[in-house]
Amino acid sequence: MSFYNFDNTNPEEEDIHYMKLALEEAKKALAEDEIPIGAVIVSKNRIIGRGYNLTEKFNDVTAHAEMQAFTSASQTIGGKYLRDCTLYVTIEPCVMCAGASYWTQISRIVYGAREEKRGFISKNVNLLHPKTILKGGVLVNECAALMKDFFAKKR
Amino acid sequence: MSFYNFDNTNPEEEDIHYMKLALEEAKKALAEDEIPIGAVIVSKNRIIGRGYNLTEKFNDVTAHAEMQAFTSASQTIGGKYLRDCTLYVTIEPCVMCAGASYWTQISRIVYGAREEKRGFISKNVNLLHPKTILKGGVLVNECAALMKDFFAKKR
Repeated sequence: MSFYNFDNTNPEEEDIHYMKLALEEAKKALAEDEIPIGAVIVSKNRIIGRGYNLTEKFNDVTAHAEMQAFTSASQTIGGKYLRDCTLYVTIEPCVMCAGASYWTQISRIVYGAREEKRGFISKNVNLLHPKTILKGGVLVNECAALMKDFFAKKR
Repeated sequence: MSFYNFDNTNPEEEDIHYMKLALEEAKKALAEDEIPIGAVIVSKNRIIGRGYNLTEKFNDVTAHAEMQAFTSASQTIGGKYLRDCTLYVTIEPCVMCAGASYWTQISRIVYGAREEKRGFISKNVNLLHPKTILKGGVLVNECAALMKDFFAKKR
């Protein structure tokens, strides 16, 4: 758990702070040679869930950063609904993760960079729960750069 | 693991056989007072993955039958792609599970009953991987009856 005292008068600053923590998660994925995507889930200025992509290590397509963050947040609060929570994720979620977020009824999703090809927005932006507010573009350059560097080295 | 000798001349019979096993998984969910949905994944006449809905027990929206079946199948074969596999699931998958199936590149999905409201088809039937063949309506009455009985008792 971490705690950071926001006065809630500057949501932009708050979003940048938590996206930096999601980037720290993404860097853990990078260190394990995984596609560098990271996520944190925040409720009332507390981190209640974290995750980073581990699909290769676990040989499991369901091991996306967001999925692990949903599971860990639910364990933290002892309930499957994340109604007063925000998911921060470095890259726009895929259809699976958007579909999982639907079931959690999460209040807000904040992502860094778009994922034009595999992200859920190009499929159907209405895959999210009607109560979920979506915001993109927070630390977009940092989030995108991690991915670009990773794939450039793979080529 | 289970094995059943099909001659592959009667795919309908094969589908009914495996859907019965998915129904057995659904009944395990029912016995734990969970929404009764079950799944099995089959590769070359072998069951390589199973799962049943455990979202309440685990307080985790990601604990759908299909998700657990994907994870267990991947562990069985030691790889995340399920290219020569069929998922049998008693109820039409939701967006999350359809999105997960995309990443597995699974060859075939066979479901029992439609889920008009929460199923992926009403959102966008193209959420599946282009290589995935979809078939519905196998043992539809048995699959639907389990759900109807469950929700009738909850009211």
